[in-house]
Amino acid sequence: MNSVNVPDIIVSRLPVYLRALQYMAANGSTTTSSQELGEKVGISAAQIRKDLSQFGEFGKQGTGYHIPFLIDRLCQILKVERVWDVVLVGMGELGHAILRYQGFLNRGFRIVACYDSDPAKIGTLVSQFKIEDVNNLVTNIKGTNVKMAMLTVPASVAQQVTDKLVESGVRGILNYAPLSLTVPPGVRVQYIDPVIGLQRMAYYLSEK
Amino acid sequence: MNSVNVPDIIVSRLPVYLRALQYMAANGSTTTSSQELGEKVGISAAQIRKDLSQFGEFGKQGTGYHIPFLIDRLCQILKVERVWDVVLVGMGELGHAILRYQGFLNRGFRIVACYDSDPAKIGTLVSQFKIEDVNNLVTNIKGTNVKMAMLTVPASVAQQVTDKLVESGVRGILNYAPLSLTVPPGVRVQYIDPVIGLQRMAYYLSEK
Repeated sequence: MNSVNVPDIIVSRLPVYLRALQYMAANGSTTTSSQELGEKVGISAAQIRKDLSQFGEFGKQGTGYHIPFLIDRLCQILKVERVWDVVLVGMGELGHAILRYQGFLNRGFRIVACYDSDPAKIGTLVSQFKIEDVNNLVTNIKGTNVKMAMLTVPASVAQQVTDKLVESGVRGILNYAPLSLTVPPGVRVQYIDPVIGLQRMAYYLSEK
Repeated sequence: MNSVNVPDIIVSRLPVYLRALQYMAANGSTTTSSQELGEKVGISAAQIRKDLSQFGEFGKQGTGYHIPFLIDRLCQILKVERVWDVVLVGMGELGHAILRYQGFLNRGFRIVACYDSDPAKIGTLVSQFKIEDVNNLVTNIKGTNVKMAMLTVPASVAQQVTDKLVESGVRGILNYAPLSLTVPPGVRVQYIDPVIGLQRMAYYLSEK
């Protein structure tokens, strides 16, 4: 049912809808409307209906959406009805916080290994993980089912580690390093840079 | 020179251009082209020229952009030629990592205070910061020049803290809690949710 022709801007909104629906479900709701969902996520009801219509019929005029059904379908569309193995590279303070974060597994992702280049860190335990040597990245990952990585290394080595991840067969990189990465076609990067978000808001602030 | 009519999608790309230009400057470059900048950030040269043209003339046909000049102008447009005071609410592991992150100040932001609701944490020191009581948030911030906040509290209390931040006069919230916040007109929220990025990439992954 996935269409290769769905614009990426629409794909980018689906996880936001899914998050809101899962939150509503956790709070005991079973039905919603595009109006209500729109208010939760700050997107117009018309846009939500249009986005979802790319993937088939989800609701009935007048009765709205059945939340568990819509969650199931969005999980299928986003391919998170399964759990993806993810590696984490860069075990500074942010890497530690991410490794201990409990919010990945119930949304489709599981960290399976963590890497660093610092000899003082390699071999030490964080939660149940032994930090592995980044030099073994390609050997360890190539040919496995690891297709995603989170990158929390310093900007100065981020491209170099990215090249290794790509060589390992990783096709999706969540990059926390504050720079744009160069990757070949077929590999995707999503950026997590708090300053980008802050700067984008500063544009709209007045001094008053 | 800021136009209120510039679409937000264009505003959202300016910090990405700025980051790439600052990275190029730090590596010793003084001039660039929309072509080269485009390759760094994964956006077409035509789009970059179109985006920048909203704010005036920045480059010359054939000679490209003078990087320090373009950085200065983008900083002015984004209002980060100054430093904005930011408060951090939620001193879990992520809050600690953010507080110690060194990458804010040189890009326009300075954390000036941090808050938590846990009596065991309030009053303790993290770096040079004493963790303050979230119940004092409104009293402490209202009437000051703090207009931005980073929110790293659990999802269950994020909306409640957001309401306090808005009451305090905060107009921009960088939200790390995995849910959509409701704010009044004139207040902006940017979201940092790693799972949204991972899910967006999972859509494009094949099992092979």
